[in-house]
Formats: sequence, C-alpha cells, structure tokens
Amino acid sequence: MSILIKEVFLNKEIVDVYIENGVFKKIGKSLNVEADQVISGKDRAIIPSFFNVHTHAAMTLLRGYADDMDLHTWLNNHIWPFERKLTPDDVYIGTKLACLEMIKTGTTFFCDMYWHVEAIAQAVDEMGIRAAISSAYVDFEDPKKGEYFQKKNREFFYSPPKVSSRVMFIMGPHAIYTVSKASLEWIRDFAQDMGLFVNIHVAETKKEMEDCKKIRGTTPVKYLDDIGFLNERCILAHVIWVDEEEIEILKNRNVKIAHVPTSNMKLASGSFKFDEFINKGLIVGIGTDGCASNNNLDMLEEMKIAALRAKMASNSPTSGKSDDIFRCATKNGATIFGIDAGEIKEGKVADCVLIDLNHPQMVPCHNLISNLVYAANGDVVTTTICNGKILMHNRYVEGEEEIIKTAKKQVKSILDRL
Amino acid sequence: MSILIKEVFLNKEIVDVYIENGVFKKIGKSLNVEADQVISGKDRAIIPSFFNVHTHAAMTLLRGYADDMDLHTWLNNHIWPFERKLTPDDVYIGTKLACLEMIKTGTTFFCDMYWHVEAIAQAVDEMGIRAAISSAYVDFEDPKKGEYFQKKNREFFYSPPKVSSRVMFIMGPHAIYTVSKASLEWIRDFAQDMGLFVNIHVAETKKEMEDCKKIRGTTPVKYLDDIGFLNERCILAHVIWVDEEEIEILKNRNVKIAHVPTSNMKLASGSFKFDEFINKGLIVGIGTDGCASNNNLDMLEEMKIAALRAKMASNSPTSGKSDDIFRCATKNGATIFGIDAGEIKEGKVADCVLIDLNHPQMVPCHNLISNLVYAANGDVVTTTICNGKILMHNRYVEGEEEIIKTAKKQVKSILDRL
Repeated sequence: MSILIKEVFLNKEIVDVYIENGVFKKIGKSLNVEADQVISGKDRAIIPSFFNVHTHAAMTLLRGYADDMDLHTWLNNHIWPFERKLTPDDVYIGTKLACLEMIKTGTTFFCDMYWHVEAIAQAVDEMGIRAAISSAYVDFEDPKKGEYFQKKNREFFYSPPKVSSRVMFIMGPHAIYTVSKASLEWIRDFAQDMGLFVNIHVAETKKEMEDCKKIRGTTPVKYLDDIGFLNERCILAHVIWVDEEEIEILKNRNVKIAHVPTSNMKLASGSFKFDEFINKGLIVGIGTDGCASNNNLDMLEEMKIAALRAKMASNSPTSGKSDDIFRCATKNGATIFGIDAGEIKEGKVADCVLIDLNHPQMVPCHNLISNLVYAANGDVVTTTICNGKILMHNRYVEGEEEIIKTAKKQVKSILDRL
Repeated sequence: MSILIKEVFLNKEIVDVYIENGVFKKIGKSLNVEADQVISGKDRAIIPSFFNVHTHAAMTLLRGYADDMDLHTWLNNHIWPFERKLTPDDVYIGTKLACLEMIKTGTTFFCDMYWHVEAIAQAVDEMGIRAAISSAYVDFEDPKKGEYFQKKNREFFYSPPKVSSRVMFIMGPHAIYTVSKASLEWIRDFAQDMGLFVNIHVAETKKEMEDCKKIRGTTPVKYLDDIGFLNERCILAHVIWVDEEEIEILKNRNVKIAHVPTSNMKLASGSFKFDEFINKGLIVGIGTDGCASNNNLDMLEEMKIAALRAKMASNSPTSGKSDDIFRCATKNGATIFGIDAGEIKEGKVADCVLIDLNHPQMVPCHNLISNLVYAANGDVVTTTICNGKILMHNRYVEGEEEIIKTAKKQVKSILDRL
C-alpha cells in the first residue's frame, strides 16, 4: 500500500511525499517512485493531522440536546437521563458520526472515555482512524461496584477485543469524586503491571477542589500524588484548579495534560494556566471534550479557542502563540500516547492532512500556522490520511451519507425511548 | 426577479418560501406560484443571514501577517507600515476577498471603517452584499488635519459615490484618543444634520480609560456623553471598560453596541459585560473586527466565541444563551442599521441563508440554533441570498477563483512595495 503526493507545499517548499506501509518513506523534490495511488498536491499544504486528546465521542448524539444550564440541571435533568438509555448500538453509531466529523476536520486520533468500549472500538476500526479508548470507571465509593469494575477491567484487559492496532485500550477512572481511593490504588497498580495509559478528569471545577480539601484534607493533585497515582502514563484532563506547587509536582511526575478550552469556557469551569504549564515544560495536548459541552470535534476551531483563552488567562496577547498551540494539537498529542507521528518527516507514521491553500480563509498565506490556528476551520482540510491510508479525499469520505442517515434515525429512536 | 425555495425547514415546519423584488412575499405550505428561479430546500433550513456590525474588511490582506505580539510592536512594526502602503486598488481587492469570505459563511452585511471608501463601495456593489461604510477619521489633535477631514467629509457626503442602495455611507471617527474634541463635536453636528450613523471604537483598552481619566478627567463614555455625542445613531465598538452607571447612560441615549469578542480576546483587551448590556435592554450586535485581530470573518464562529466569552465574564454557564447570541448576530445587526431584515417573515427584506442539515456538525439537530451557535462554522451554509438575489448556491460563488487568484497576486505586490 503506497501513496505518492505530487508537488505539495511543505515548509514553504514544493516537494513530493511518498508514503509506504503507513510511514513517510521518502520526501523530496520530483521523486522518481511508483505508487498505488498518486494524488496531486497542487495548491495544497501538507501538515500533520490532529490528535484530540480528550473527548467522549459518542456524545455527538447529544449535540445541542442541552446547553446554557447550570451544571446540576444540565447533568441531572438532561445529560444523564439521555445517557442511561444508550445501548451499544447507539454508542457504535454515535462514535461513527464522531469519527466522520473528525476525519472531515483533519483529526486522525482521539482519546475516549465512555461506555460500551467494544462498540467504540468497532466504530474506530471501521472508520480507519486511531483511538485510545477507555471505559469510564465510576464506583461512587461503593466497594461492591469497585469489585465489579475491577473484575470487568481484568477480564477486558487480559483478553481485549480483537481490532486493528490503530486502537489502543487504556484505563479511565472518571474523577477523584466518583472513584474510591481503593479503586484508584487498584487502577494505579493494574495500569503499572499492564503498562497501560490512564486518563482521568482532575481539578476541573472549584467545587471539586473545595470538596477534596474538605474530605481528603488536600487538593486533587496532591491527593493523587500522595497515593502514588501520578506518572508518565497519566493523562489528566482539565487541570484548572492547581497552583504553582502542584504544577511542579505534575512536571516532576512527567504527567501529561489534556487541555479542553471550549468545555472549560462553556461550563464556566475556570481558567487553565496555559503559560505556566508550557513554561514549566509539561507536555500539553488539546482536546475538544464531548459534543455536549463544546459542541463539535473540530480541532482547528479548538486551537483558536485555546490560543484566545491563553491570552486571556495571562492577560497578554503574546501568550498562546500559534506555533505552540499547533504543536499541542498535533505532535504533543502523538507524543502523549507514544505514537511516532505529528510531524511530516521521513520515518514518521503517516498521519497527515492536505490543506486547501485556495480556501478564502487561507488567503493570503503570510503564515501557514497562523492561518490554521486563527483563520481556518475544519473545512480547509481536503484530504485526511491515517496510517498511510486515505480516509477523505476532496472532502469526501466513503459512506458518509449512510452514517448521517443512520445517526439521524438512531437519535430519533433514543428520543422515543426516553 | 423572484426566487421560490421549495420545501425548506423553517421553525421545524417544511414550507415554501417565495421571494420577489428583494422581500419575502409569501411563506407557506406548497405555494402555487411561478418564479424566475426555483431551488430545492430539501434537507436545508432557512435562517436570516448574518450582520457583521464591526470590521475592517480590507484587512483580510493582513490575515496572519502579525500575531501574538504586544499591541505596540504589532501596530508600529507590522500593521501600520503595511497599511501605509495600501492603494485604492489594494483596498478594492482586499474588500472583495472579504466579501467572498462573508458570502461563503452566510454574512450579507458588514459595517466597515477603513480608508479609500470609494474602492470599498465598488467592491461591495459588485459582490452583491450590503455594507455601512465609513472612512476612518483620525486627526491626532491637529486642527489642520481636522479641517482637512471636515472638508473631505463634506465633499463626500454632499455628493457620495453612485452605488447600489445596498451601500450606505456612515461616519467613522476612529476613537477619542485619535480624534480631537473639536472634530468629535463637528462630527456630532454634521451627522445630526445629515441623519448619518456614526461608528467609533470606545473603551477598548484599560489604557484608553486611564489616559482619558488623566487627560479629560472622566471616562470615555462620560466624555462622549458630556459633549452630547451619544444618540441612537451611534454604534460603539468594544465598550469593555465601562461600569454600571455608564451602561445606564448608554441605555438612556439608546446607543447601539458592536461586540467583537475574538478581537477583545486576541488582543487581551478585557471582558465585555454581555449580561449587563443585554439585561439592561441595550441592542448589541456582533462583529468580527478585522482579519488582523481575529483572523477570519466567520460570524458562526464569532457567535460561539461570544457565547463562551459571556459565560466566562459572568462565571456562569447560563449566560450567553444561544438564542440571545443568534439574535445579536442577525436581527439586532439589522435593527442597528435600520434594515428591516434579520427574520424570515413575509414583508421582511430577503437576506437569508440555507443551512445544510446533513452537514456532520448539524447532526443530530436537537436544537437548530444551538447547533448554529455552538457546533457549526460557516461551511454549513450552502446558499446565501441578499436583497432577494442568490450570491452563493451549493457553496459556489460566481468568480470566486478569480478573486482568490487576484488577492494572492496583490498581496505579493504589496510585500514587494514594503
């Protein structure tokens, strides 16, 4: 399986890019190679595809279902009653819809936390992108539930679903206020034994921080550190309510950060300290969160909002520079999950997209990265390639009409069940 | 000139929409009318088009030219040197590029402040959209310059360029710190005599507010009120550094507000008090500002950022509700400039767009307005109609390739002149 992209812009030069067996094999001027597929790069730039490091993909089914509410009303009266009705079929279809939107907006990887992970894995496998999938672990301090989840996790990870190597399974304790200490310690040890990544929501709201202080006598980050939970395989989402000392702890433990700016703003959760994390040298990726708190999965839009949010957080227009933001949304995401992608270089995994340099929002092009971060949205992506395979070309994804049709029908059936 | 849109979604019903001579003539089920053009509304929703109440359109030429800098470096070393080189031809081509982007993202009106207004008017006229165009009035407290601008304005408004009635000319004093008191008073009287709208940047930065207190002994809003400048024909852009008493003054004077959330965030200018303005009953429109401080003209994206910004400003997810934001971006913009549009109703001016309900970001559609505000970007717009004329259909604008090509060439020539 090979692809030759002819005469495409890469760092202001026009080159040919030859992809073989999922990696960039050769990049250079006028390559003299044959390929199974040859596509034109005329008026296109090639860039790494996007890595969405925190979402709940199947929540596309809840896009616009409930907005503009206080957290309690939103969750109790709307989101949870809807989610309680979701079957594996619903989740499969919701995840396919999410994957479609991601492919259309240039994203080829997402980190997911939800239920019915087999259905998620199947959807991802079929759609051709990558994912790190975790089943939400929520025991609500109930030891019986804890045991149940531990048994389920053992069974699952000892014999995981047989799917493409593009899919990895990781652990997903929901948060410190929904998972008991005993369970967190079990997860810590199990993940260590199995070499698993762990993603968890941490320090998202002021309430979480205050409750933690009341109940545990310390902050969420320090609580996790005290029980030895934090290490280089941990991906912490949100991480808003932290001080300098805690950022230092996170840095020392080499923890990875999933920054979800839109969700943080939409739910009025607080201000992510972008500068402090970056300056301290922590690896920060960018995520869209789920469609109930965003309400899309467009990483190009998310980059802009991340940049704007960073400037506000520090009260300076020099924060959240476009190059830094772009790296967070591409290479950093790959690095966090140990994928050798995120750059257009020989030997790297061939996850990439082509950008339409004639799209009105890309003209003029004084600075490609600035245009991508500040001016463009997902529709500037014309071609999406994951693992050396074309998933979208000329903005068309095979079978997209069917996915849209099925998703619409499925949502109707969920509403009928409510 | 008539258009019949067959079987289109309007407020959850499927109707036919008949447009004649620029207005919605008849809306209803299965209309029995003939029309010059018949288009299908299948899987489309019809909504009012967007009104961008504050921008500097020709600054699309500077998209991505300079970002992530402190205001002083940005203006002095980058923006102003570039702008000093701009000829009427540059501005004409930059404005055409801007109009193209607006049409592609569903905007049919913009309020502009720039130089070479004849060139702007010609571009708008040709592109078929509406605009309120002002020439930036900047005398830097120099009485000679003041006289020059007054003479120029008199000549201009006594015999304005002959263009379509879609174009209105308004006044554009830049700001209180770039225009002398004598000039502001002259503008106040001239605008009164001529019945002109006036747009001005007000209370954008903390520095403006502090300098004003130092120099004038009062705040920007009170200074303008003291000289009798404020009335229902005034559109104030930014309006960040104001307190409750000043918002009360603005309300009493029936002043109109142009909220530009992205620009305010990108330049770290401060926090617009969205809730306070809305609750007080002021008419707030939404603008993108120019492409040097945004860097696009997509009102759908701007709505999302406005909603998120409002939630942060009040620290509550219930602020910046999608219905309010949508009204600001459509009907309020029309109202501010006295255009009887912004709603899909019989008798109203036919400025509208069709939305692709099969676009991944519009699926599912629990709530059309929420999807438009939070999930969609400009590429969900398939058809743009202004003044009863189709400017884009199936995402194609006549002559778009030529505009892109010319704009690219022109930017190269400007860079050569620098």
